[in-house]
Amino acid sequence: MITLERIQPAIEPSELKALLHEAHQCNQRLEAGTGLGADMLGWLELPQQQTSDDIALVNAIAHSLRSRSDTVVLVGIGGSYLGAKAVIEALSPLHRVHGSDIPEVLYAGCNLCPDYHSDLLDALDHRNYSVVVVSKSGSTIEPGLAFRLVKQHLEQQVGRHEAAQRTVVITDPEKGALREWAKAKGYRTLAIPANVGGRFSVLSPVGLLPMAVAGIDIVALMDGAKQAQTDTSVAVAPELNPACLYAAARNGLYRKGKRMELLATFSPKLRSLAEWWRQLFAESEGKDGKGIFPVNSSYTTDLHSIGQYVQQGERSMFETFVDIVQQNSRLVVPSDSRNLDGFNYLVDRSIADINSIAMQGTIQAHHKGGVPVIEMRLPQLSAYTMGYLLYTMERACAISGYMLGVNPFDQPGVEAYKANMQMLLNNGAAV
Amino acid sequence: MITLERIQPAIEPSELKALLHEAHQCNQRLEAGTGLGADMLGWLELPQQQTSDDIALVNAIAHSLRSRSDTVVLVGIGGSYLGAKAVIEALSPLHRVHGSDIPEVLYAGCNLCPDYHSDLLDALDHRNYSVVVVSKSGSTIEPGLAFRLVKQHLEQQVGRHEAAQRTVVITDPEKGALREWAKAKGYRTLAIPANVGGRFSVLSPVGLLPMAVAGIDIVALMDGAKQAQTDTSVAVAPELNPACLYAAARNGLYRKGKRMELLATFSPKLRSLAEWWRQLFAESEGKDGKGIFPVNSSYTTDLHSIGQYVQQGERSMFETFVDIVQQNSRLVVPSDSRNLDGFNYLVDRSIADINSIAMQGTIQAHHKGGVPVIEMRLPQLSAYTMGYLLYTMERACAISGYMLGVNPFDQPGVEAYKANMQMLLNNGAAV
Repeated sequence: MITLERIQPAIEPSELKALLHEAHQCNQRLEAGTGLGADMLGWLELPQQQTSDDIALVNAIAHSLRSRSDTVVLVGIGGSYLGAKAVIEALSPLHRVHGSDIPEVLYAGCNLCPDYHSDLLDALDHRNYSVVVVSKSGSTIEPGLAFRLVKQHLEQQVGRHEAAQRTVVITDPEKGALREWAKAKGYRTLAIPANVGGRFSVLSPVGLLPMAVAGIDIVALMDGAKQAQTDTSVAVAPELNPACLYAAARNGLYRKGKRMELLATFSPKLRSLAEWWRQLFAESEGKDGKGIFPVNSSYTTDLHSIGQYVQQGERSMFETFVDIVQQNSRLVVPSDSRNLDGFNYLVDRSIADINSIAMQGTIQAHHKGGVPVIEMRLPQLSAYTMGYLLYTMERACAISGYMLGVNPFDQPGVEAYKANMQMLLNNGAAV
Repeated sequence: MITLERIQPAIEPSELKALLHEAHQCNQRLEAGTGLGADMLGWLELPQQQTSDDIALVNAIAHSLRSRSDTVVLVGIGGSYLGAKAVIEALSPLHRVHGSDIPEVLYAGCNLCPDYHSDLLDALDHRNYSVVVVSKSGSTIEPGLAFRLVKQHLEQQVGRHEAAQRTVVITDPEKGALREWAKAKGYRTLAIPANVGGRFSVLSPVGLLPMAVAGIDIVALMDGAKQAQTDTSVAVAPELNPACLYAAARNGLYRKGKRMELLATFSPKLRSLAEWWRQLFAESEGKDGKGIFPVNSSYTTDLHSIGQYVQQGERSMFETFVDIVQQNSRLVVPSDSRNLDGFNYLVDRSIADINSIAMQGTIQAHHKGGVPVIEMRLPQLSAYTMGYLLYTMERACAISGYMLGVNPFDQPGVEAYKANMQMLLNNGAAV
C-alpha cells in the first residue's frame, strides 16, 4: 500500500530503519494503552468490536430514513460529518443521477454562515427530507443552532409526529442536550462511544449511518477496516505495516525540516477525503508549538494553482500521493477527423490511463524539484478500500503523534475561539 | 478596506512605514512598466480600458446562451475558470433555487479524472446545454480533451449546426487550436488579450462571459474594478492604498519568518474566491526557492480542522481575514419553549451577527496565540465589491512579487509536470 522510495535522498534507508523501529514502539504503546490520551482509544477496536447486529441496526435505521425521504440533512461539524462526507463523495457520482432513488445528503451546522443556512432552508421547502444530527455534547453552537432551524422547518413541513420519526440523533450514550431532545421528542438514537473522539469516529455510527443512507455498503467498509486493524497491529513487522511506514516517513521528513505535507489526489471525488485527513492530522498533531501543517491538493486542478510553488518555491514540504490504481470509468479520447488540436495521437486511450500518467509525471517532476514523495496505492475506489484507508490513516496518525511527542487525542486549542465567542455573545458586544 | 493593527507586535509601525515606501516604489515600477515581466501588464488597465461596447458584446453573447440552455459547461483550467467560479459562487445561492431561469454553470477540463467527466456526460444527457471553452493556446491537455468529449456529446445531442450556435470560444486573438476550431466550425469567439496571463484574466472576457451567463451584473463588477484601479494607482499615498498595504504587510511578515498565509473567510460562498486567490499568489510568488505558501481556510468549518494547529502549532503563519460587513440573510435564532440546548439566550439574534462574533473571537484568539492578522473588510457581497476585491488582489500580488524580487507574471515550474507527462505519453509508457 505504501512506497517510500522517493523519500530519498532526504531520508536514507538506514535512517528509515531507525524511524520504523521507533514507530513500532509507539504502536506498542498505543496497543498497550500506555501512551498519552489512553482514555480515548475506543476507535482502535471499533472495526473488530462492532458486531454484525450493530451494523444491522444502523442499516435498518438508514433504510427507514431512505424510505421516507429524498434528502437527508446531516447536521454536524468537524469529525461529526467530515468522515461520512469523505466516503459518500468518494463512492457516489459527482453529479446527481437523474431519477436516482438514493437520497441526497445535504450538510448543515458545519458553519455559521447565514446565507448558507437560508439557502438550505429554501432548498428544503421543495424536498421531502429527514435529519441526522451528530454532536457529542449537543452544546456546540454551529450544529446546535442549525438543528434548531432545521427542526422547526421540518415540524412545520410535516408536523411534529412525522418530524420525530424522521429525526435520528447520534450523541453521547448517556448525557447532553441532544440526549434530552431525543427523550423528550421520541427520536431514535445511536451512541458515540465515550472513548472515541470526533475525528476518530468515522467507523462508529457517526460515519456509518449517513453513509448507509447514501447507499454505501457499510458491511464491506467495515470489512476493509477490520483487515486494516489486523495489518496495522503490533503483530506485523513495522516495515510491512502501512501505519508504521507512513508515520515513520512523515516524522522523519519533519525532523529534516519539512514543515508541510500535501495530500495529493487525482480525483475530485477524493477532495473530502483529503479534508477529513486534514482535520485528523492538524488537530492531532498541531500543538505544543509543533506539527506538520497538512494541506489538501486536488490534482491536476491544483497543478495550475499551487503547482508552481511546489515545483520551485521554498523547499519546506513533502507530498503524499494517493493513487487509485483501477478507475471505474472506461471513458476514452474520441477521435476527430480534423485533429485541429493535435490530440489524435491519444485517440482511444483511456482518460484513466492519461490521468495516471499525469500522476507519474507529477511525482517525477516534484521529486526532482526537491520534494520528498510518499506513495499510497489503493487497488480501486470501493467501500472496502475506503474502510481500509480510513482505519490505516487513524492508526498512522496516532503513532505519528506519539513519535512527535504530543497527545494526539486532545484539542485544547479549539476551545480558544469558542471561549472568546462565548464571552462576546454573553456581553452582547456590538458588532 | 485593510486594517493592519494586528500585524503588531511582529511588525512595528516604524517598520510598516518603510515597507509601505518600498511597496509604493514597486507600484511605480509596475505602472511605469519598468519591472520584471513588463510585457504581461495588460490586466493593469483592463477595468478602465474596456469600453461599454466591449461589455455589451459579452452580455449579448451571454444572453444568447441563456436563451438556448438551462446549463452552461465552462471548459477550462486554472485561471481560465477559477475567477468566474469565484464570483458566481459568491453571488449565487448555494443550493439551486427551484424553478430558477438562470443557467447552472458546470465545470469541465479542470482535471483529468475519468469518473468526473463520465459523471458529467451522464448528467448532460438530461440537460439542455451550451459550452464556453477557455484556453489561450488550445493545446493544454485537460481542457483540450474535455472539449473533445463535450463537443462530441453536444453534436450528438442537438446536431452540428445547433452545437456550433451553442459554443463560444475564448482564446488567443489570432492563433492556436481553439481559434482554428472556431473558424472551421463557425463558433463565436472572444479574445484573451495577448498581454494578460491566465491568473490575471478574470476581468477580461475569460471571467466576464461565464459570470454574465450566470446572471452576474458585470457592469457593476467592472465599476468596482475601475474604482479599485483608481484607489490602487501610484497617485494614492501608500498608507491609503489597499494594494500597497496588503503587499507591504505580507512581505514584512514573510521577512520575519512567517512562511504561510491563510486566507480566512466565514462563508462557504467565498471558498472559490479563496481558490482563485491561492492560484494568483502561489503561481506569482512561488519560485526561485521563495514565496509565502497560500492556504485557503473556510471558517468556522475549518476551526474544527486546522484551527487547533493555527492556535497552538508551529508559529510560522499569518492570517488574512476577509470580512463581509453586511450579510444578505436575515435569518435569526428561533425560540424553543423547552430550551434543552440552552440556546434561548440567543433567540432572535441574527445568525449573521453570531457569525461576525465568531470572526472577532477567532481573530482575538489567533492573534493572542501568536498569529499576526491582516483584516480586509467588504461592505457587502455584491458584483461591485467583488470587482473591487479582484482588482485590488491582482495589483497587490504584482506589487508583492516585486517586493519579493521575483517575476510575478511567469510560471516556469508549471511546465515540469507537463513535459514529463508529454514524454510518458509519447513513449506509450506502461502504467
